[in-house]
Amino acid sequence: MEIIGTIKDMHDLSRALMSQDKTIGFVPTMGALHDGHLSLVRRSKAENDATVVSIFVNPTQFGPNEDFLRYPREVEKDVDKLSAQGVDTIFIPVEREMYPEGFSASINIGKIGEILCGASRPGHFNGVAAVVAKLFNIVMPDRAYFGQKDFQQTVIINKLVKDLNFSVDIVVCPTIRESDGLAMSSRNSYLNSGERKAAVILFKALKLGEELIVSDGIVNAVLIKEEMRKLIHSEPLAAIDYVEIVTANLKEVEKIKLPVAICLAVKIGKTRLIDNLIIDPNNADICSL
Amino acid sequence: MEIIGTIKDMHDLSRALMSQDKTIGFVPTMGALHDGHLSLVRRSKAENDATVVSIFVNPTQFGPNEDFLRYPREVEKDVDKLSAQGVDTIFIPVEREMYPEGFSASINIGKIGEILCGASRPGHFNGVAAVVAKLFNIVMPDRAYFGQKDFQQTVIINKLVKDLNFSVDIVVCPTIRESDGLAMSSRNSYLNSGERKAAVILFKALKLGEELIVSDGIVNAVLIKEEMRKLIHSEPLAAIDYVEIVTANLKEVEKIKLPVAICLAVKIGKTRLIDNLIIDPNNADICSL
Repeated sequence: MEIIGTIKDMHDLSRALMSQDKTIGFVPTMGALHDGHLSLVRRSKAENDATVVSIFVNPTQFGPNEDFLRYPREVEKDVDKLSAQGVDTIFIPVEREMYPEGFSASINIGKIGEILCGASRPGHFNGVAAVVAKLFNIVMPDRAYFGQKDFQQTVIINKLVKDLNFSVDIVVCPTIRESDGLAMSSRNSYLNSGERKAAVILFKALKLGEELIVSDGIVNAVLIKEEMRKLIHSEPLAAIDYVEIVTANLKEVEKIKLPVAICLAVKIGKTRLIDNLIIDPNNADICSL
Repeated sequence: MEIIGTIKDMHDLSRALMSQDKTIGFVPTMGALHDGHLSLVRRSKAENDATVVSIFVNPTQFGPNEDFLRYPREVEKDVDKLSAQGVDTIFIPVEREMYPEGFSASINIGKIGEILCGASRPGHFNGVAAVVAKLFNIVMPDRAYFGQKDFQQTVIINKLVKDLNFSVDIVVCPTIRESDGLAMSSRNSYLNSGERKAAVILFKALKLGEELIVSDGIVNAVLIKEEMRKLIHSEPLAAIDYVEIVTANLKEVEKIKLPVAICLAVKIGKTRLIDNLIIDPNNADICSL
């Protein structure tokens, strides 16, 4: 396993792999790896000749009052976990090389970046789009792996790839959950034990939404969201950012027509968590949405 | 020589060339080719195993009141000229594949896209950046060739490549001129014979600026620009858009310290023309600026 720190070294390695006709799988991460990340790594290893994992806490996707500085950083542990998975290459770029003085380019992906999480995190998805574009140009992967937990992000990255003609297949993998249903997230480490128990309300609300749609056959999205909101309000530590039901293109749904995605963002104490469920009678895999 | 019309075919061809370890030189054009374009083609052929020339009049870099619809289109003549140069591949994408319904991505390169030509053509360089990013991702060249005539464009594309880590070497080639000094441009075809004679005022003004700097040793940029403006005003058909003296990073210069670029945009009748001269005691080649 090789750890690479400079853009040039990473690029040269990818060039070498390409000239050997080896396929490259890429898992971009912000580190603080959990089983969700590792499931992406395993999928990449199964589908490609070489797997590159990047660890970079990207400053441009954090707002001025967000958690950039306290975002968990545990590179040594991460390296151990990736080593145990048999990852070929870990790319750990430094901020001053990724964003040198005078850096000024930005990518705007349009309205889908301004709704849902984009509404409460203005500029967030522009930052995501730019760093993903940079990483794709540096690593030049055949396939890149993202978790369905960040559903809006996966839609935006698919749009980035399509609109700017990147030659990367985007593979979206199922959300990995704790035993009580909480979606794995590096930000779960912010939760104290009371908050951790309360955080299950996100998954419970999603399951309620699913039940109302699938079992009860309710098609009025407003009604479903209202029931979900009520349930979340029953948890004293929870404060709703949004509860939405959308299409694969993130269009708000009024009358349920499957497939749809139920998406929510909820603050538990000071920690903002997101989660989603895809309701698709034919396939639970978001890729088919 | 092969003419390719779809993104997929172009991409597949480039992939095949790369897996054969062949270098790709790329000359993106809007067609209506003149000797300036052909000089880029010759340079590309001399430096690469394969040369791809694209012809695409990119709608997103034209403003609503600009000349997109009447921009000269003469694809058959262009193909003949490129064939005579021994070009390997001509890529002629269609608008509906480049910008399908729902296309929404945009690239903003920052302040350097909002000055000079960007001030009178708002959004122009965002359109340039996006189409160049798309073409780079489709063609995947090792080197891409641009004319110095579009000086600001070359600065912006270099910034795009640097900020987003495209692995393309940008090669800027000298401006090719008519015998009286007029820079070759597809838009020269808009000029009637009186306007054509008047258009030499751009080059004359640049040469005056050069003389004031190099021979007379004047360092006051305001003074130099004022003399250039006076000369241009002496031509009744000419109307100044801008006359500026800037650094390699497009910063306005007050006190001349070489190297600098003298840049101007002037309307001759209804036709807006641009030109520039690099004043560099060590090297007339913009690449060294």
